[in-house]
Amino acid sequence: MKTQYYTASSLDGFIATEDHSLEWLFPLAELESTSYPNFISEVGALAMGSSTYEWLLRHVVKFDTSDESAWLYSQPAWVFSRRKLPVPAKADIRFVQGDVQPIHTQMKEAAGEKNIWVVGGGDLAGQFFDAGLLDELIIQIGSVTLGSGKPLFPRYVPSPTLRLHSVQRFGDGMVELRYDVNKKD
Amino acid sequence: MKTQYYTASSLDGFIATEDHSLEWLFPLAELESTSYPNFISEVGALAMGSSTYEWLLRHVVKFDTSDESAWLYSQPAWVFSRRKLPVPAKADIRFVQGDVQPIHTQMKEAAGEKNIWVVGGGDLAGQFFDAGLLDELIIQIGSVTLGSGKPLFPRYVPSPTLRLHSVQRFGDGMVELRYDVNKKD
Repeated sequence: MKTQYYTASSLDGFIATEDHSLEWLFPLAELESTSYPNFISEVGALAMGSSTYEWLLRHVVKFDTSDESAWLYSQPAWVFSRRKLPVPAKADIRFVQGDVQPIHTQMKEAAGEKNIWVVGGGDLAGQFFDAGLLDELIIQIGSVTLGSGKPLFPRYVPSPTLRLHSVQRFGDGMVELRYDVNKKD
Repeated sequence: MKTQYYTASSLDGFIATEDHSLEWLFPLAELESTSYPNFISEVGALAMGSSTYEWLLRHVVKFDTSDESAWLYSQPAWVFSRRKLPVPAKADIRFVQGDVQPIHTQMKEAAGEKNIWVVGGGDLAGQFFDAGLLDELIIQIGSVTLGSGKPLFPRYVPSPTLRLHSVQRFGDGMVELRYDVNKKD
């Protein structure tokens, strides 16, 4: 069981534009031709911030429109939010706030043998890192720069905490870098 | 002859800390075991911003101290600066300012068959890109995050302008990503 921050990033370290858009990402690779199908099959619980959740509701699920589609995940998702947000049909959403440690304990119980996916944003992943709970960073670097936007991982983590585990290329639009997080004992 | 932006970056897209330091970079790989020896042997002219130049003078050359060592490059270096800065012995430094286009023309003449290296910072590389003069981005991504600092490439460059050309790994501390810049005709 691992806790993994799995996300796409621009080459210059942004996971979304200032207005939370991921539109830059879609031309780069077909999701099915990346590591995503294997990755998600091993995920037992998800954590995400409220901005990520709202972006998914608005732009992917198209919640409360005539185009509405199903929620994306069968796994339970813990959404860190101080506000009450809508929940699509058949979505297992658990609104939480505060310290990630006790929530991670709940997530582990739900995930069982499977992994915990920290979907984003970057600061939420940073909070799991700060608490010593993050095992891996799995970053798909897209062949774009955004110049500004939402930061990938707003933390100072000098060598040798992160160790490059593997590199996998997906065409000329994306390369995935996997890092192990060396935990202090 | 190519114009290349060759630099190391943190995973989160910073080439230096806020105070211009590159200290984070040195534990990651021995320069001689990276692509640098081959790269520099093909460089005929360099361009750099004043912050990069001053950092090199202060921290590598140790200019005007009892520890002073030789300037790093035999090739001529164009330094973009509005200020008059000191020049170490035997260094071929040409202070310039303003539009990169005519300076690039001078650099090409000096470089001959060899390449032009845009050393940094990110905005200077961006100016060469804006003028349609940049052919390649060659970025060594270190296994660190800095959280803040000097941006790698403060430009919005959506797909498909950059194409991932090659990926080369150097141990678990560094991976080099080479991108071709697709120029508009």
